[in-house]
Amino acid sequence: MNSFGRKFRVHIFGESHGENLGIIIDGCPPGMALDPADFDADLQRRKAGAAGTTPRKEEDKPAIVSGLFNGFTTGAPLTIIFENNNTQSKDYEALRKTPRPGHADFVLDKKFNSYNDYRGGGHSSGRLTLALVAAGVVAKKIMAPVTIQARLTEAGGDTDIERAIATAIAAQDSIGGIVRCRVQGLPPGLGEPFFDSAESVISHLVFSIPAVKGIAFGAGFAAAKMTGSQHNDSFIDEEGTTATNHAGGINGGISNGNELWFDIAVKPTSSTPKEQMTWNKERASVAPLQIKGRHDLCVALRVPVVAEAVCAIALADLKCLL
Amino acid sequence: MNSFGRKFRVHIFGESHGENLGIIIDGCPPGMALDPADFDADLQRRKAGAAGTTPRKEEDKPAIVSGLFNGFTTGAPLTIIFENNNTQSKDYEALRKTPRPGHADFVLDKKFNSYNDYRGGGHSSGRLTLALVAAGVVAKKIMAPVTIQARLTEAGGDTDIERAIATAIAAQDSIGGIVRCRVQGLPPGLGEPFFDSAESVISHLVFSIPAVKGIAFGAGFAAAKMTGSQHNDSFIDEEGTTATNHAGGINGGISNGNELWFDIAVKPTSSTPKEQMTWNKERASVAPLQIKGRHDLCVALRVPVVAEAVCAIALADLKCLL
Amino acid sequence: MNSFGRKFRVHIFGESHGENLGIIIDGCPPGMALDPADFDADLQRRKAGAAGTTPRKEEDKPAIVSGLFNGFTTGAPLTIIFENNNTQSKDYEALRKTPRPGHADFVLDKKFNSYNDYRGGGHSSGRLTLALVAAGVVAKKIMAPVTIQARLTEAGGDTDIERAIATAIAAQDSIGGIVRCRVQGLPPGLGEPFFDSAESVISHLVFSIPAVKGIAFGAGFAAAKMTGSQHNDSFIDEEGTTATNHAGGINGGISNGNELWFDIAVKPTSSTPKEQMTWNKERASVAPLQIKGRHDLCVALRVPVVAEAVCAIALADLKCLL
Amino acid sequence: MNSFGRKFRVHIFGESHGENLGIIIDGCPPGMALDPADFDADLQRRKAGAAGTTPRKEEDKPAIVSGLFNGFTTGAPLTIIFENNNTQSKDYEALRKTPRPGHADFVLDKKFNSYNDYRGGGHSSGRLTLALVAAGVVAKKIMAPVTIQARLTEAGGDTDIERAIATAIAAQDSIGGIVRCRVQGLPPGLGEPFFDSAESVISHLVFSIPAVKGIAFGAGFAAAKMTGSQHNDSFIDEEGTTATNHAGGINGGISNGNELWFDIAVKPTSSTPKEQMTWNKERASVAPLQIKGRHDLCVALRVPVVAEAVCAIALADLKCLL
Repeated sequence: MNSFGRKFRVHIFGESHGENLGIIIDGCPPGMALDPADFDADLQRRKAGAAGTTPRKEEDKPAIVSGLFNGFTTGAPLTIIFENNNTQSKDYEALRKTPRPGHADFVLDKKFNSYNDYRGGGHSSGRLTLALVAAGVVAKKIMAPVTIQARLTEAGGDTDIERAIATAIAAQDSIGGIVRCRVQGLPPGLGEPFFDSAESVISHLVFSIPAVKGIAFGAGFAAAKMTGSQHNDSFIDEEGTTATNHAGGINGGISNGNELWFDIAVKPTSSTPKEQMTWNKERASVAPLQIKGRHDLCVALRVPVVAEAVCAIALADLKCLL
Repeated sequence: MNSFGRKFRVHIFGESHGENLGIIIDGCPPGMALDPADFDADLQRRKAGAAGTTPRKEEDKPAIVSGLFNGFTTGAPLTIIFENNNTQSKDYEALRKTPRPGHADFVLDKKFNSYNDYRGGGHSSGRLTLALVAAGVVAKKIMAPVTIQARLTEAGGDTDIERAIATAIAAQDSIGGIVRCRVQGLPPGLGEPFFDSAESVISHLVFSIPAVKGIAFGAGFAAAKMTGSQHNDSFIDEEGTTATNHAGGINGGISNGNELWFDIAVKPTSSTPKEQMTWNKERASVAPLQIKGRHDLCVALRVPVVAEAVCAIALADLKCLL
Repeated sequence: MNSFGRKFRVHIFGESHGENLGIIIDGCPPGMALDPADFDADLQRRKAGAAGTTPRKEEDKPAIVSGLFNGFTTGAPLTIIFENNNTQSKDYEALRKTPRPGHADFVLDKKFNSYNDYRGGGHSSGRLTLALVAAGVVAKKIMAPVTIQARLTEAGGDTDIERAIATAIAAQDSIGGIVRCRVQGLPPGLGEPFFDSAESVISHLVFSIPAVKGIAFGAGFAAAKMTGSQHNDSFIDEEGTTATNHAGGINGGISNGNELWFDIAVKPTSSTPKEQMTWNKERASVAPLQIKGRHDLCVALRVPVVAEAVCAIALADLKCLL
Repeated sequence: MNSFGRKFRVHIFGESHGENLGIIIDGCPPGMALDPADFDADLQRRKAGAAGTTPRKEEDKPAIVSGLFNGFTTGAPLTIIFENNNTQSKDYEALRKTPRPGHADFVLDKKFNSYNDYRGGGHSSGRLTLALVAAGVVAKKIMAPVTIQARLTEAGGDTDIERAIATAIAAQDSIGGIVRCRVQGLPPGLGEPFFDSAESVISHLVFSIPAVKGIAFGAGFAAAKMTGSQHNDSFIDEEGTTATNHAGGINGGISNGNELWFDIAVKPTSSTPKEQMTWNKERASVAPLQIKGRHDLCVALRVPVVAEAVCAIALADLKCLL
């Protein structure tokens, strides 16, 4: 319920069109140097602006309002707050009567008895990944010198990403993609046999990223078609280095010291510019719907930095629990 | 750390070759009829015996030692204990020197400073899925009349499962498979936007099943190749029924009332009968290894009932939290 | 670690002299009317100003930055933020060398490797009870029509509170006090046999109030001197009304429907104006210390509204868990 | 809900007259020597037998069924199970109609819709302290060389305990008492400012001991009558040794390295032999009740070893979280 972690814990809050959104990072050890500029690179990567992303522009300036003193973490909760400025809430008023296909409109209305803030997706908005990225910056510092890097390897079924975006823009239809995340330098021993396997904890957080519908570690679904002698990674030295890495760096739920890697399936942005059919409450019938508002045509473009962030948060908690 | 759930909580314990294994189920509402015979069907499904499964035979008789009174749950912790009888521990003594490829031997030794019970995989053994299946029986009762059904849809890349097993036996090499799980009758509203999406909670538990390396909800990885207009599921009535179900019955992390479905990738059993190469600590070199002991040739055969169990546990917790 | 609760959860952050302090309230049901003015009465009661309280004046205006939409809670995290304006940090610089008797200076410095924000007590400051009181306002709404009322029954050993304060001002020495909290209208059934008894959950939170050193439910320590026939509260009707209430409305850790009541022991404010002896790091010897800064002479005066708040938070969580 | 702890976690189960009771201890580090004989001394101290205690005799032999291998903890959950043998359940059948004053009969019936196992107090029985004492033995090992010692300092208002018991036996009326617990050798730094102060965590567990109604750290309620200059403990050296110890070894919720000490108020055993009045459901009127069954006349006699156990569990969790 908006919290994650046992020792390195994050608590997220905010809405797409509310006053603020942010995150409390609890369990951060004291004495870690932290500067507002440390957030620049990842927040910039997450920002919209490229072809295929939303025209909504926000400054996304992190305010560290607690837990930092003289440039170092204090051990008290680290709270990072952002402002929402560039909101156009009138775009959303019509949508209460016509739940958008692929969106959470319908379920949020049911779950929260119509009291949810529906503007821009409210608390469910991809806008909240801003807070995740900020927490990821802190988690990456805790994990250093481990490196965590994700990139979009495929969009709309095409590994040439620029071409894929151009095609989507031409077709005026949203597309999905595959993001691969690689973690290097991780020591063996992170994760538990039950229930907090490295895969469990990482997948738990990865499925908090809007639009993610699948995750596969190492060979993943391809492993299901392999034989044991093909799939098994032979150990080749005392440190546990393996000749291959079909297991994605995890055996029995525990990191084995080789590269940890996984793929994420991102579905196409629900808010496609294409006209769609959906239930219209006012007409009490299925009717066409044209989605307005500012949306990413390929939300997968913005997922890599978020995937890195949640992976870092998951690993930081496992590390702090050791 | 061996516990899962916020309101409907399970705590697992035991080892493959220890005296007992079992599970505490906490948060079970009082007044639910429960009989030892209720466990028969699912425990029988999990049992070995078919072609492609281990020759180890256990009685697997559940002892309900607390939380049950006059045939009804009391609201106090429900504890279910099993005995291990048919253990052959000498098979495992040699393995400390030669970590088996694909196994947790290496990481467990590192993580637990060589104090782990290595016999039969110890606490990491697939034997502990027995306790999960028992808890799943209770969770399914809580979820009734919702039905949860999983089946092996593919083994070793072949959808004809019998042929796949025959091929593996002939080749004397283990194989993996794909398990599909379907949940029918689920109301809308289960799951949270952050961080406990239905996908997050289900995947967290599914990755506690040994040998699982991937999970995909609805269209899953195929969704990454679709356009928004192809993927989006149009609502066709007031109750939220959708024309298609690419989302797997989950929007924005919350169940939408349609069938919830997902696929699990199960890797080939690590203990393949084929000779493999691995690091040999005594020789300080890579050397051939022939795995002995009693193992499943296709562990995926035994996964469906376990997948149902963990899915039921995940959903029961989300339901109890409403 | 800065979080409390299982279903109705609070996460506190901030420091005495930092930019902001606040609290996330998670698990608040959607559809509850909430207005910034609802906080006025309790925040006013907590404010300094009376004889015996600190001269530091703060506006203490709550900003509800998430979780509220059109005047109603949404079911998403409710975040309430306050500003710190009236800070005089230079008062505290000298204290690093001379840990104040009765204060957390020494232990905070040890625990956080000297990285803690020591200004005004930092994250350990009584200033953070502002956030608790705000969360208490929300919790009281959830508990309505249950009423929770606390008052100072004794200060410096005197039940005439005004006289006690006058004496302390004349003596220029801080004093403690006893706060009694009464909860009326509570239904039976809140609390668990293990480990979350009503007493356990309430005491857990009450000991988060700075300066509290004891808690006693019902007859409390006097019960230890009574016989069973004196202490037992006879049930006198079908609803469980008892003839006496030595148990403080709790049997076996569970509310019994009678008035729940308890007493809290508040020690004298550590920052007494009297000169004291303590270890002086610079001199490497015990030396006299005169505490400066702005402090309450009788911090117990400000505890009742905080006690009500934490009691309400504890009960709201127990209620939401039913 | 039957679990306690964040890193060193215990999960309790069982009933007074059920088949088994026990506890899972999770988070215990691997490599700790543990022998069944290690439990003898504390289990013996808890046993009935002395004047003023129940005539029910049980063998109380701990079976360590998981988590132990070759005499050392493995890092997997340590499960300790006891049997109930000497049960006389027919004693309790009449009580459903007449809730015993001071007992949980009434609230348990309400809370669990009459499905609770009422025999011998069921899951709420003092019998479950057996499991707490067993977990305490493990926790004490984790805390070594810290020593935790509790003793009954007063019974029925008399510091001569033998005389107090004799008086109670003569009067055939149960009595309460005061237990003092002392912890020596504790390093500074255990406990958190919010919400997990050392007092919070200890009191949370202490109020899980049946019959406890009050707790006071250091000077406790007497502190409320002291002035700041009387109460404050002056630091006298670099290590934080204090001249006095009114704070009970805890400043700002954090251990300060001095002796940690607290007093517990134990009410008289509810099951007094004296005839009492209570509501009689069959007669629909207040009527006399004579309690049968086997009970402690002074349950406080058996509390010290339980108090040590829960104190050790609380401290072990705080230590493991550092």
